[in-house]
Amino acid sequence: MKNLMNHVDNALAESLDGFALANADIVLLGADREFVQRKNPKPGKVALISGGGSGHEPLHAGFVGFGMLDAACPGQIFTSPTPNQMMNAAQAVDGGSGILFIVKNYSGDMMNFQMAADMLDQENAIVVVNDDVAVEDSTYTTGRRGVAGTLIVEKILGAAAERGDSLKQLKALGDAVNKATASMGVALTSCTVPAAGTPTFHIGMHEMEVGVGIHGEPGRRRVPLASADDIAEELTSAIIKDLAVKPGQEVILLVNGFGGTPMLELYLMVNAAHKVLSKAGVRVARHLTGSYVTSLEMAGCSITACVADPEILTLWDAPVQTAALRWGM
Amino acid sequence: MKNLMNHVDNALAESLDGFALANADIVLLGADREFVQRKNPKPGKVALISGGGSGHEPLHAGFVGFGMLDAACPGQIFTSPTPNQMMNAAQAVDGGSGILFIVKNYSGDMMNFQMAADMLDQENAIVVVNDDVAVEDSTYTTGRRGVAGTLIVEKILGAAAERGDSLKQLKALGDAVNKATASMGVALTSCTVPAAGTPTFHIGMHEMEVGVGIHGEPGRRRVPLASADDIAEELTSAIIKDLAVKPGQEVILLVNGFGGTPMLELYLMVNAAHKVLSKAGVRVARHLTGSYVTSLEMAGCSITACVADPEILTLWDAPVQTAALRWGM
Repeated sequence: MKNLMNHVDNALAESLDGFALANADIVLLGADREFVQRKNPKPGKVALISGGGSGHEPLHAGFVGFGMLDAACPGQIFTSPTPNQMMNAAQAVDGGSGILFIVKNYSGDMMNFQMAADMLDQENAIVVVNDDVAVEDSTYTTGRRGVAGTLIVEKILGAAAERGDSLKQLKALGDAVNKATASMGVALTSCTVPAAGTPTFHIGMHEMEVGVGIHGEPGRRRVPLASADDIAEELTSAIIKDLAVKPGQEVILLVNGFGGTPMLELYLMVNAAHKVLSKAGVRVARHLTGSYVTSLEMAGCSITACVADPEILTLWDAPVQTAALRWGM
Repeated sequence: MKNLMNHVDNALAESLDGFALANADIVLLGADREFVQRKNPKPGKVALISGGGSGHEPLHAGFVGFGMLDAACPGQIFTSPTPNQMMNAAQAVDGGSGILFIVKNYSGDMMNFQMAADMLDQENAIVVVNDDVAVEDSTYTTGRRGVAGTLIVEKILGAAAERGDSLKQLKALGDAVNKATASMGVALTSCTVPAAGTPTFHIGMHEMEVGVGIHGEPGRRRVPLASADDIAEELTSAIIKDLAVKPGQEVILLVNGFGGTPMLELYLMVNAAHKVLSKAGVRVARHLTGSYVTSLEMAGCSITACVADPEILTLWDAPVQTAALRWGM
């Protein structure tokens, strides 16, 4: 394993310092690097906080800023942040209208965010994201995993919070968007957690892991590497089935790279996914393509669709200014 | 080698189709996929055209749009586009005020862009980018290579063209920005050109290639993998020396991933580069961090600095709306 690092124990801290330097117009780093917070918070707004293990960059710190998150708590690589981090982030960004936690469904994250939520004096709620249709229950999860769809939930809730929605409204909207969002991924190579030093899983030169999780967790099956069209067919069909998308409905389509897959291939997958959606009579109303929810340097991608009515599209299109997503301003 | 593809011969075409679908609000695909063009051209503006081998995405098609390029001509992977592509792109985006070609210094690109320029009826000029300080002359190049600094030249010229600068002014500005811009990179792994099927170069488990080119060309030396701080010291010092940056001067800092390196490590490199620049009394006025000028799935990164006066910073900050860079609108 080869990394651009000084010492593995300092890698996250130095990376967060670099992130804060590179995005000093948008974010501040909290004390002891416990969280990344929005530089210019909006008083009176519900504060949105997410977080989780590191190694998925730009998720979540890359989505802190106007129109998206107020704070993100980074855990060590593939390790949940602590309840203390979440509580301190909540104190820092509290705008007086309550705190909404957006949590990917992993047992460690769920336990720690719930603990923080219970201990907070402020009114709060949790939106759980569990968009991965690949498997029920997995290595680190009871129920379905939260993966790239988290970006969509964070973007839409961020826009709704910015326009002044209440905590109760945001909780309901977040649950609805999560329900309307489904993802599935495929891995061609493993990632290697630097502290472990060896690949998370072994995969043959001509194999792929269908339904892989964003920490390299096993998916549905290990099979010979298929064509892009066949992969898109399997992933997209599973998503369409899960969401029960009807012909004529519109979706936001996110083709997400896991870190080690070139953009050339991600765009090829967009083309492949379009063929499947088009055959099903589903129209892609908005696109996002890139490596946004990654698994270190794992090669592969996931496809995410979010069934979108005009209200959802308006919130998706609303201005956002974060390190990783910027438009409309 | 494992890729998300159907057949290697169709990969570029399918990827361009996906790119055009995903960015239909910004770009159009030219006939026979010869070029990607800006959807809403501005009449009377000098047209900016770039291009080069594919495999460096999002460069160049990802930079087509308001405030940057008017067209990009994609060659096959790591292969120059043809003069015909460039001439047809020029016909398509000609705004009546001349054509400026922005060309990375590789022998194939130089020859083909020069041929297109010679055959064009329109007034035109060429800005050559040769920002790579690693080596004089290389596998595909006479003189210095054009690498990630190309993004900076394209952004600044794009803003200047948008405000109405003439062809002559843009040519002079482009040459000046190129001269004020320097880059150097390091590779930890090789890339694999899909049509070749084997890694471009062999590199040991504990080695790195210092001064690597964006096609995996040899650099200055093959040495044991060093710490991030030592790498940043070597790359950044070479850049500072080449540009003769003085204490008190300001730079735009681009830390660019080659494709296979996680964002976590790129931000760590930002932090490391800052230490070197800070020691030299150089202030980073603007940052850009991400995998923008890639070599397929190669792991590693380059550091680019552009010495920036207030005029350059104003042009850098000017609104841009492309697939890969968006701000200010």
